[in-house]
Amino acid sequence: MADELPTMTLKAIGVIRNDIKDRLPGGCDWWADVVSEIVIDGSLTEALDGLEKFSHIIVLYWMHQIVTNEIPLKVHPRGRQEFPLTGLFATRTPNRPNRIGKATVSLLGRQGNILRVKGLDALDGSPVIDIKPYIPGYDSPVDSKVNR
Amino acid sequence: MADELPTMTLKAIGVIRNDIKDRLPGGCDWWADVVSEIVIDGSLTEALDGLEKFSHIIVLYWMHQIVTNEIPLKVHPRGRQEFPLTGLFATRTPNRPNRIGKATVSLLGRQGNILRVKGLDALDGSPVIDIKPYIPGYDSPVDSKVNR
Repeated sequence: MADELPTMTLKAIGVIRNDIKDRLPGGCDWWADVVSEIVIDGSLTEALDGLEKFSHIIVLYWMHQIVTNEIPLKVHPRGRQEFPLTGLFATRTPNRPNRIGKATVSLLGRQGNILRVKGLDALDGSPVIDIKPYIPGYDSPVDSKVNR
Repeated sequence: MADELPTMTLKAIGVIRNDIKDRLPGGCDWWADVVSEIVIDGSLTEALDGLEKFSHIIVLYWMHQIVTNEIPLKVHPRGRQEFPLTGLFATRTPNRPNRIGKATVSLLGRQGNILRVKGLDALDGSPVIDIKPYIPGYDSPVDSKVNR
């Protein structure tokens, strides 16, 4: 099957700027209070009009930190050895076949082509792939369960 | 800035199979009851282990339907002329710089490399880019607002 699966090319639409440099911090929810700027390419500024109406946005970004060239099919969730090996698609490890991160963040404000957001768990310099409005209901099922 | 923005290559990890053929249906929430199969490449089967614990998963897929080669910066939300022109990043239009769709769907079951899901608003044949567990709290802010 792998031979029949298509490849696709992405072009970044902007870049993330924050104080999280070489590596992601450890600990739970470290990102909750991190404020980042998302600088979108100036040619796309107009495409952000209307985003201010939403309290939260979805950011798709490229997890560009280099972990390794290998992609193990199973990993310890959050890198913690005490958690049993789990299929990578059942975790949020950045080391995955297509290294796209998805974060839902609070939109603090917008100035032209720059979005100011809180709660983004991305490294400084991460390329931005897409911005979408967060739509309660569509993006958040009411009856979701973990460890069902 | 555009010249400095990187390009990235994706390789599909699977394909979506359902009864939604040539074009997406109209109407509100048409996708809510659609059942789809997500067929993941057999070499990645083991990477799905553990996903069964989650009631919902996030599917990133390529919106491969051809709308047009042009990407207008502003669109009428949901294609409805009565809605005012809005920046494309403040809508979920498939016609965007990087045509990645993000859906949160109910995981009905898994058989080997095939996931059965409900609520996916994708056309039959859409390439799958990533599968992530849906994590309440991380993926769903409690205080989100539209039209604030």
